Amino acid sequence: MPLKPALLLAALTLPLPAMAQMSPAQVAKLRDAALKDEIAWDITEGLTTEIGPRLAGTDDEARARTWAVAKLKALGFSNVRVEPYQMPVWVRGEEKASIIAPFPQQLQLAALGNSGATSAEGLEAEVVYFPTLADLEAAPAARVAGKIAFVSHAMHAAQDGSSYGPFGQVRRAGPAIASRKGAAAILIRSIGTDYHRNAHTGVTTFPEGVAPIPAAALSLPDAEQLERVLERGKPVRVKLLLTPRQIGTRESGNVIAEVPGRDPKAGVVLIGGHLDSWDQGTGAIDDASGVAITAAAAKRIMAAGRPRRTIRVVWFGAEEVGGFGGTAYAKAHAGERHALAAESDFGADRVWKFDTALPASAAAIADRLQTALAPLGITRGNAVAGDGTDIAPTLALGVAAVDLTQDGTRYFDYHHTPDDTLDKIDRAQLQQNVAAWTAMLAVVADAPEEIGAVPRPAAGH
Amino acid sequence: MPLKPALLLAALTLPLPAMAQMSPAQVAKLRDAALKDEIAWDITEGLTTEIGPRLAGTDDEARARTWAVAKLKALGFSNVRVEPYQMPVWVRGEEKASIIAPFPQQLQLAALGNSGATSAEGLEAEVVYFPTLADLEAAPAARVAGKIAFVSHAMHAAQDGSSYGPFGQVRRAGPAIASRKGAAAILIRSIGTDYHRNAHTGVTTFPEGVAPIPAAALSLPDAEQLERVLERGKPVRVKLLLTPRQIGTRESGNVIAEVPGRDPKAGVVLIGGHLDSWDQGTGAIDDASGVAITAAAAKRIMAAGRPRRTIRVVWFGAEEVGGFGGTAYAKAHAGERHALAAESDFGADRVWKFDTALPASAAAIADRLQTALAPLGITRGNAVAGDGTDIAPTLALGVAAVDLTQDGTRYFDYHHTPDDTLDKIDRAQLQQNVAAWTAMLAVVADAPEEIGAVPRPAAGH
Ligand SMILES: [Zn+2]
Ligand SMILES: [Zn+2]
Repeated sequence: MPLKPALLLAALTLPLPAMAQMSPAQVAKLRDAALKDEIAWDITEGLTTEIGPRLAGTDDEARARTWAVAKLKALGFSNVRVEPYQMPVWVRGEEKASIIAPFPQQLQLAALGNSGATSAEGLEAEVVYFPTLADLEAAPAARVAGKIAFVSHAMHAAQDGSSYGPFGQVRRAGPAIASRKGAAAILIRSIGTDYHRNAHTGVTTFPEGVAPIPAAALSLPDAEQLERVLERGKPVRVKLLLTPRQIGTRESGNVIAEVPGRDPKAGVVLIGGHLDSWDQGTGAIDDASGVAITAAAAKRIMAAGRPRRTIRVVWFGAEEVGGFGGTAYAKAHAGERHALAAESDFGADRVWKFDTALPASAAAIADRLQTALAPLGITRGNAVAGDGTDIAPTLALGVAAVDLTQDGTRYFDYHHTPDDTLDKIDRAQLQQNVAAWTAMLAVVADAPEEIGAVPRPAAGH
Repeated sequence: MPLKPALLLAALTLPLPAMAQMSPAQVAKLRDAALKDEIAWDITEGLTTEIGPRLAGTDDEARARTWAVAKLKALGFSNVRVEPYQMPVWVRGEEKASIIAPFPQQLQLAALGNSGATSAEGLEAEVVYFPTLADLEAAPAARVAGKIAFVSHAMHAAQDGSSYGPFGQVRRAGPAIASRKGAAAILIRSIGTDYHRNAHTGVTTFPEGVAPIPAAALSLPDAEQLERVLERGKPVRVKLLLTPRQIGTRESGNVIAEVPGRDPKAGVVLIGGHLDSWDQGTGAIDDASGVAITAAAAKRIMAAGRPRRTIRVVWFGAEEVGGFGGTAYAKAHAGERHALAAESDFGADRVWKFDTALPASAAAIADRLQTALAPLGITRGNAVAGDGTDIAPTLALGVAAVDLTQDGTRYFDYHHTPDDTLDKIDRAQLQQNVAAWTAMLAVVADAPEEIGAVPRPAAGH
């Protein structure tokens, strides 16, 4: 029966006739059907298997764009396209470290994005220990110069991921501070919460004029081992080999797909996640699941009929290394009216809370969201929505927002490590995400209220 | 007060006067005091920090012997010595693998002990998939020749570790079977139960006349990724670089320490674990904790007075790569009377069961053990005791045995991986182990019964 799948696909992809606003019962029906969703799993499994790691600006990310365009077209979206931009590209090299004295042994580590390189022979230096970033900041340059600065700390898991902001500063700012004091290199305790010997990478920044020194994260077992070795009170020497490279300007791009709305003046609902990933895992929770959840929900709305507002799904490029895709998108689409934006970039564990940022004239939408999301165990929060690196530049222009906040308790066990792989995705929780996004889109895209501007300061985290 | 610690040490290490058999109340008191033991933690922390990995036959294992002799002397044991022997030594080299086609991406793997090497440029070949070892065995050589055989399976966690025997055959025998069929190399799914990208190594054997081909284990996420890629039905090519080496015959050794007994004719109680470890972790659960638990218990008995039987603590060398230490010990001490042997080599989670192998004339010892161990939550099993690679050659001579069986539910999450590090030791469970061993030794070493031979077939697992 070779015709059947083709016929089924045609039926699914053919836009149904325009409808009036969905009733709460229709929203509930769409939401509950999404609890059996297979589209998000199919995208997550396909992207992580057929592409795997996809570091921003590399050929791997380019292959991911090609894959994404084919997948989004096959799902029946309209206006599927790539919007390219240029960006500087950093690639990982060799990375090895070992304690030379007093207790010789290897250490497991990962270079931070934008890390400088050692020579091909590596460097050897004494380690100087700082329990916190503040201790490094307070240290006189003479204590640090020529040494390997080692900055530890104690990030703990939090359901809302709130520990990432403050603890992440060690990674974001620590290397530049150490460089300014003349450090030969810097090692940090991974910004992570698991005790596996897979270090957590992530981007760091050396401002103009600050020399990029070798900068790497130790896994938690390695960081604690180095602390124990230091506690013995003898001078500790470490040999470090890191050979990452800046390979110049390359092309990256955002992949865009749409569900056309019936009222072009009502503004676009912008949703998505990021297509790029770090290079050591396959980017399953960060962020194959995010692009999958948002596209699956949009597809389910499309299959139910033409919504009032156009839903634009963007699979952003180059988020991890500096949000280049989100910046390029905001610049390219600054002249367009966006009604609302929402982003999924915190894994695929269950959504437990939602927040909104809506103009007063559209406040009733939040009440309807509460009704639609409560059966999924999602409570209404009291924060101002606006999460997400990729939508931040668009939100900064005054666009309304919804956050569907996932349970992040185990997110930082895997985030930015080789362990971010498909097996970390819980299929039932992934489906709950799709149901939440489907319900949210059903309410928001069809809302009869105008959704005007929400003044806000520049956001992002 | 510089004299105080020295005086205290002298008091602790001076053998107390000979005593009669301990009463059940005295045994209980010793057992309960051991629940606050710090000796086992001190040994585990020290060995894993100050030595780290200690692959059999290497300089690292030699440093561990020096460390062990110093530690056991400092604890006040008698006759502390190294008994050396010679053994063939294999060392790890570089190890890299990637899928070349159809979906280029890296794979994480670890060479198996005794693996052959690829050339310095690596080898590239098509992958041929076998769900089980039986499928590989059944395959005609023409399907395998020149290819990379990939053998998967599905080991699951079991409290008693019983899945390791049957599933471990893939690692032990699979490489030789693949070599006989002309395979270019073999990849196996790790013999492990965790989903982290740290592959599980372990020894394999190529019998005389069978060429050692490159043989490595993939982590579970990588093995399942490779299965998904194969499921797409296109030819899968993998590039493999493995450069381990056989470096010839080197010296290894057993470290031995004693608590002298008051009745030399009553036979020796032999206890211990193994000092060597695999090279990627620090060998905390395998088996720093085993040498620590047994030595701590013996030290606590020593501090309570001279037992009837000599307790001999052996920290065996070279267990992981073929039980060379256990074999050398049995050969060197075949002429001595051993009353009983017991080994700790299954991590440091709580002891939940004990078994015995005793002659009928000493059966009452098992009843007294039941009384002494029950308050620790340890039940009496109905198996014949005799676990342990290192004591197996001694047990085979007809020596009685006690097994104190640890909870192995999470053991194969870490076993033979870089993740076998100090943080995996639960201090309260480690103390429960010391209490169990202390109670066992108090009962066994002082038992008034003669403990004669127990006929048994050659044991070991
Ligand atoms: Zn992300
Ligand atoms: Zn072991």
